[in-house]
Amino acid sequence: MRYEKLTIEGRNAVIEAFRAGKTIDKLFVLDGCQDGPVRSIIREAKKKDTIIQFVSKERLDQISETGKHQGVIAYAAAYQYASVEEILKSAEEKGEDPFLILLDGIEDPHNLGAIIRTANLAGAHGIIIPKHRAAGLTATVAKTSAGALNYTPVAKVTNIGKTMEELKEKGLWFVCADMGGETMYRLNLTGPIGLVIGSEGDGVSRLVREKCDFIASIPMKGDIDSLNASVAAGILAYEIVRQRMNIK
Amino acid sequence: MRYEKLTIEGRNAVIEAFRAGKTIDKLFVLDGCQDGPVRSIIREAKKKDTIIQFVSKERLDQISETGKHQGVIAYAAAYQYASVEEILKSAEEKGEDPFLILLDGIEDPHNLGAIIRTANLAGAHGIIIPKHRAAGLTATVAKTSAGALNYTPVAKVTNIGKTMEELKEKGLWFVCADMGGETMYRLNLTGPIGLVIGSEGDGVSRLVREKCDFIASIPMKGDIDSLNASVAAGILAYEIVRQRMNIK
Repeated sequence: MRYEKLTIEGRNAVIEAFRAGKTIDKLFVLDGCQDGPVRSIIREAKKKDTIIQFVSKERLDQISETGKHQGVIAYAAAYQYASVEEILKSAEEKGEDPFLILLDGIEDPHNLGAIIRTANLAGAHGIIIPKHRAAGLTATVAKTSAGALNYTPVAKVTNIGKTMEELKEKGLWFVCADMGGETMYRLNLTGPIGLVIGSEGDGVSRLVREKCDFIASIPMKGDIDSLNASVAAGILAYEIVRQRMNIK
Repeated sequence: MRYEKLTIEGRNAVIEAFRAGKTIDKLFVLDGCQDGPVRSIIREAKKKDTIIQFVSKERLDQISETGKHQGVIAYAAAYQYASVEEILKSAEEKGEDPFLILLDGIEDPHNLGAIIRTANLAGAHGIIIPKHRAAGLTATVAKTSAGALNYTPVAKVTNIGKTMEELKEKGLWFVCADMGGETMYRLNLTGPIGLVIGSEGDGVSRLVREKCDFIASIPMKGDIDSLNASVAAGILAYEIVRQRMNIK
């Protein structure tokens, strides 16, 4: 499990946690407490759709680890990022060719969560996301991943292109989803592979695309431009699954 | 195009439109207008994430069709449902075997929108949704469909099972996605087909499942139970695409 629970107690600590964008899973507030700081905390909690429970002083004292809760205790989630090495090691331990999913700028947490869920079920060994301009591991991502975040490691890197170079030296091939590529069914997607999914608006960035060995296209018959990013990731990931199962 | 724009003018008409759950694409409000009814309208609009524009009286007079706007004008979208017959006719006109997607209780508008988007690109001729306990064609669905709602018809039926019976008489086969079925890659999914996707929480209902000719399973290697409904729909729809393209 790469999930640990932190207890944050006291008004300042809790409000700071919210403002720092920490993932708060649950907020306990002293029932009947209505003063300014507590109301600010409740407002922040509502903004972030945090579960709020109004409880008695006895209950708070019982939950408290410091004894100094001042009427508020938050449970914060700390989803831990893995390293790229850990992801490769997990493939090795399973005796499988590495299967990684690289997200080149997915910004919608629902898409990130759905992709982590897909990665888990498609048997991918991990996900790599960039540090900048991308959704991180928030509570929404955890929820949308339907628990998969507890099993499928996510690594965060400064530069996706550089990470791809390093992984190529370890024998990985890269395929990205983009228009104008070869129909995915006709590509050989077996072996140690990194599947690159572009951002919702702009697709795969030029520098990352140039580092890919193949460009795979999902056949499109319709009137609009593109699939939802998490759906596209699912379709491509499962084409890799199909080919790995060696089903014709 | 199955989208038409309606202009709704006047305070009562606009507030009623919001309360009736009508899809309001844009709300124009007289700049500086702060009285009770207008504030109620703005509150409703914010609740529904409607785009609000504060404009001058001259601009409102210009947009107005009745001349009696009372400081508020709403653009409402009227997404029209198609009939099952219209969907079948569109397949016939294209000279293709019908390919329908039936949603047995999808409740999340983001999933419905993403599935309409997928249906459009996978070349499905239309979508059938039930009248009850399911997301309808709201603004969120339209937005998430990325425009596909303008091209891919959606029919609403009282009883999915009954509609399946009628479609079977017209030669359609039905496949639903569920655990414990045959791996989708090993099924023959060509010919006139209806793909049935179950609800997010409960999957395909028993009565609908019993009417299916095949049960298809997406192979799952991971630790969690199920894929996101719109991702699962995408993977299955594209297995149908692959088989229709006759790619081995």
